[in-house]
Amino acid sequence: MKKIALLGSTGSVGTQTLDIVRSNPERFQVVALAAGNNSELLISQAKEFHPSLVSVATKELADEVKLHVSPGTVVVYGEEGLVEAASFGEADIVITAIVGSRGLMPTLAAIEAGKTIGLANKETLVTAGELVIARAKQRGVAILPVDSEHSAIFQCLNGERRADVKSITLTASGGSFRDRTRAELQGVTVQEALNHPNWSMGAKITIDSATMVNKGLEVIEAHWLFGLPYDDINVIIHAESIIHSFVEFTDHSIVAQLGMPDMRVPIQYALTYPERHPSSADRLDLAAIGKLNFREMDMERYPCLALAYACGRLGGTAPTVYNAANEVAVARFLKGEISFLDIERVLETTIARHTVVPVSGLDVIQEADGWARSAAAKG
Amino acid sequence: MKKIALLGSTGSVGTQTLDIVRSNPERFQVVALAAGNNSELLISQAKEFHPSLVSVATKELADEVKLHVSPGTVVVYGEEGLVEAASFGEADIVITAIVGSRGLMPTLAAIEAGKTIGLANKETLVTAGELVIARAKQRGVAILPVDSEHSAIFQCLNGERRADVKSITLTASGGSFRDRTRAELQGVTVQEALNHPNWSMGAKITIDSATMVNKGLEVIEAHWLFGLPYDDINVIIHAESIIHSFVEFTDHSIVAQLGMPDMRVPIQYALTYPERHPSSADRLDLAAIGKLNFREMDMERYPCLALAYACGRLGGTAPTVYNAANEVAVARFLKGEISFLDIERVLETTIARHTVVPVSGLDVIQEADGWARSAAAKG
Repeated sequence: MKKIALLGSTGSVGTQTLDIVRSNPERFQVVALAAGNNSELLISQAKEFHPSLVSVATKELADEVKLHVSPGTVVVYGEEGLVEAASFGEADIVITAIVGSRGLMPTLAAIEAGKTIGLANKETLVTAGELVIARAKQRGVAILPVDSEHSAIFQCLNGERRADVKSITLTASGGSFRDRTRAELQGVTVQEALNHPNWSMGAKITIDSATMVNKGLEVIEAHWLFGLPYDDINVIIHAESIIHSFVEFTDHSIVAQLGMPDMRVPIQYALTYPERHPSSADRLDLAAIGKLNFREMDMERYPCLALAYACGRLGGTAPTVYNAANEVAVARFLKGEISFLDIERVLETTIARHTVVPVSGLDVIQEADGWARSAAAKG
Repeated sequence: MKKIALLGSTGSVGTQTLDIVRSNPERFQVVALAAGNNSELLISQAKEFHPSLVSVATKELADEVKLHVSPGTVVVYGEEGLVEAASFGEADIVITAIVGSRGLMPTLAAIEAGKTIGLANKETLVTAGELVIARAKQRGVAILPVDSEHSAIFQCLNGERRADVKSITLTASGGSFRDRTRAELQGVTVQEALNHPNWSMGAKITIDSATMVNKGLEVIEAHWLFGLPYDDINVIIHAESIIHSFVEFTDHSIVAQLGMPDMRVPIQYALTYPERHPSSADRLDLAAIGKLNFREMDMERYPCLALAYACGRLGGTAPTVYNAANEVAVARFLKGEISFLDIERVLETTIARHTVVPVSGLDVIQEADGWARSAAAKG
């Protein structure tokens, strides 16, 4: 029985993680659930899965939740509650499915507590990859990717020597606007941006897919997860999202991972690794799909991706600022404050104004993150 | 330094194996070369690679070869010479790149001598898979596939548990006539049949690709190599031969191996396994390829493949007869004795006339093989 602490239980990855637990009650047990403001769904999850601990965003929500869950369930709240859930004693694995750099502190806490990490929060590695990877190594903790692209790379590396890897390539669907020119991006609506062609995901990641920031975050995440230089991390447009990513080896043999676009497969793989177990996901029928299309990534069409590579190569606090500025810009777009193309403008101007410094500790990250948030809020 | 005995050195796989040795003189050494009648090429290979032993088809050829190779090189001939090369003391690995069931005896000899096998002779496993696999297990000898499809499956299984495999799928280009209807196959010439769209290979395997017998042989080979039931071995048409084959796991995750169609990659992988080393093969650029196409295998268009599955499922001597009848039919087609569509007719009638018996020993295989050859010669 694998015991799971699930951070971000009411989001897209969170609810899909619970689908997997629901289908495999003999294999998995939920011991802690952390959500934000969606107390209603959290309460129903707590009633179904009987965790020992639940966490919500505020004291008010915690008081409300207490009225509905069994008296044996500890209810905590806020940043401290999240950290408590992340380091909860009983858990074997922590699935970090909260969105944004808010995932950093609980992830670090889980690492300190010696938990295996199922990493569904890419912003953690983007904002503080150097620190997180170093601490995971020190503690001997495994970080198992949950992102479909990184899970694909991770699967393709099974049984291979890292020295034999020549490059990796992340596939990108192109997002909601892949068939529009830059001129046609003027004045697109939030609703249009949220309409992803292949994957059903949360709002932030769907917008990030349309701007290609998501792929930029993934490139930086891959750099830290797999220890590869940016020159060996490629991105290709693959409209169907069937090949989830691939590894090229020194002998020019390529190993790819494929499947229907269904997050339950990579989530479950992190939960069952190194084993595999039957999944509720549909089987892939390549003959029924018929064609897989590929085209070169266009860095001019997607300047946010070029910017991610530039920030990754700069290192230090540059990726922290890239991520924080993007979080703010996306939130402002979703609120209707700025236009779609303003997202990249806010990113570019914020990064241009930032003085990159080396990451000597968590305080440096937090300062850069805070600075970027306030700069991006005004940009 | 890995020491190689190369059986079939003047053929397509043989010369490509020597290309790899030529590019990696610090890593590989050829200690034995066996050819058939192409003594001229064998002599030049012996002069370049200085093997300790060479083998040719006949005493006459051996006498000729002796005049041209260094006095330290032992020259042998015939079936016995081939077996001697296969079990040659110095060799670490034997690459079995001879065509047809003639590969069986030397492969068995190499297994008895405890050599690692680089299996490029699929007919060996088709004609006597049960015996060969059992002896390899007894002797603790690894059989490393060299066929691109089987090498692909083998690579995709790296680091995975066999229990987690749900199915494998071999890709088929469709061969020289993939865009012709069955009606359009009437009266096709040998020259047309030898014109494979993707792979540069020997005559027999190119004809086998056009009839889809090659994929049938590969299905049976995969059954023995990977220990999978026929229901879990699929074939799909993939015109570009870029995905060389793939494995589906129980979690519906698929791992595929891709690359430019270049036999040097799977040959080299067998030579360097479990490591990988830089290759002279071109890198695959999926964006430049643009599209990968897939369609369901049509068993009515390719009845020889359906027949291979039927023979595989029947077991016993059925695959032996399928293979032997095919070898004779292809030779007769190449000599202009029978038409292209006669190949499948000869296969069908020979198998229909055969009484399948269990394989209790090598003599049963040899008898069935001999019977099928004489039946197919008259069919």
